[in-house]
Amino acid sequence: MTGRLAIVGLGPGAAELITPLASETLAAATDLVGYAPYLARVPERAGQLRHPSDNREELGRARQALELAAAGKSVAVVSSGDPGVFAMASAVFEAIETGKPAWKDIEVAVVPGVSAMLAAAARIGAPLGHDFCVISLSDNLKPWDLVLKRLEAAASGDFIIVLYNPASKARPWQLGDALRLIARHRTPSTPVVFASAVSRPDERIDITTLAGADPANADMRTLIIIGSSATRLVAVGKGRRFVYTPRRAELVET
Amino acid sequence: MTGRLAIVGLGPGAAELITPLASETLAAATDLVGYAPYLARVPERAGQLRHPSDNREELGRARQALELAAAGKSVAVVSSGDPGVFAMASAVFEAIETGKPAWKDIEVAVVPGVSAMLAAAARIGAPLGHDFCVISLSDNLKPWDLVLKRLEAAASGDFIIVLYNPASKARPWQLGDALRLIARHRTPSTPVVFASAVSRPDERIDITTLAGADPANADMRTLIIIGSSATRLVAVGKGRRFVYTPRRAELVET
Repeated sequence: MTGRLAIVGLGPGAAELITPLASETLAAATDLVGYAPYLARVPERAGQLRHPSDNREELGRARQALELAAAGKSVAVVSSGDPGVFAMASAVFEAIETGKPAWKDIEVAVVPGVSAMLAAAARIGAPLGHDFCVISLSDNLKPWDLVLKRLEAAASGDFIIVLYNPASKARPWQLGDALRLIARHRTPSTPVVFASAVSRPDERIDITTLAGADPANADMRTLIIIGSSATRLVAVGKGRRFVYTPRRAELVET
Repeated sequence: MTGRLAIVGLGPGAAELITPLASETLAAATDLVGYAPYLARVPERAGQLRHPSDNREELGRARQALELAAAGKSVAVVSSGDPGVFAMASAVFEAIETGKPAWKDIEVAVVPGVSAMLAAAARIGAPLGHDFCVISLSDNLKPWDLVLKRLEAAASGDFIIVLYNPASKARPWQLGDALRLIARHRTPSTPVVFASAVSRPDERIDITTLAGADPANADMRTLIIIGSSATRLVAVGKGRRFVYTPRRAELVET
């Protein structure tokens, strides 16, 4: 008897940003698998089993979920934000490709969610209103030289740049290096946004500039948006400020 | 008396992918503004006024919405997908910055949504599972040379590439040029996905390769995802296929 597996995006945090499809999928599952703090966001249901895990064990967690589904369970793997953006969906498909042949017969669905970058952008205006790149600064699973190559390409292409996983205790220096690289292509007044825990009670959003950006203000949970040459920081009424990138763009020297 | 304005993401199409916050914001509005086919997705409510418009008049539509809010209305501007990604949010902030001084006092909120790229990716696996770039091919508001510069940067940086607005009747040749440029950096077997109307009754998703991609299959509503050197097309049971990009990446010649 083969069960099914859904990889479900919980959105950035607030219950009002979880899609009805995600809520229904979670409610219908017999087993929930995921990083413990994400599982804690899902309402408890009688009879439903929870399998919390550590954040670092993505592939192991994916295999555990597939074992449960292969045994006939209806499994939901939970991710924060969208499961396809630096989250659990890739790990599940990798586990399917490289794992037990029977896993290829499991019915698998991905339930998209509002990603952290979309939620962060919405809180401060429309910084992603034009062409953009999304890069994880973590070099746990890729060489740092590849990160540098992609940062150089994104900066020289005058893209808006979104950075995931900008820093951790084990690699506090990477964000500073990344910002210095980008600063060779952008003016010091380029808008920069640090966002964490968007839509949650401990939400923190700082609007600054490339010259003013302090890497010490970022940790693993921070998402950083760096404007293109066209991105604007606008002061409006009541001390509010917006960051947006106009729809019109010109070719500029980068 | 100043009203308020929300720019609301409807998600890709299905009602089950509209967030509760978006539904509540739409229900609370006195006036709805938007491109007519998007407005048609919002349930009718007695006493609520609708202001449908043409797709090309983004800035005019933004100004109309701000006029209504300045007159005390509670206005919702609707966008498909997420309002911050090639949609109405940028136009509204541009209208605020360049328009009547009183518009700067209007309370403005952006309600994020599940973007077309996240929904398309979820339907076929996890193609956006690693660093990616998002580019609009339209040269209505930017020079084609800037599009080429960004395509070259994205391709040489070995990013997964998402293309919005790949073709229209007025510019049928651009997608072919873009694919040929990318093909100078990627193997012919690189997975390519054409997706349109994701989650709607007329959804169409074609999985192909860079060698097999036919620009004639795209129109303004098509979203295209082109894999990086690491992206994999995997056949599983029952004739199903997944496209995913592994979490691990290597530096390769591009």
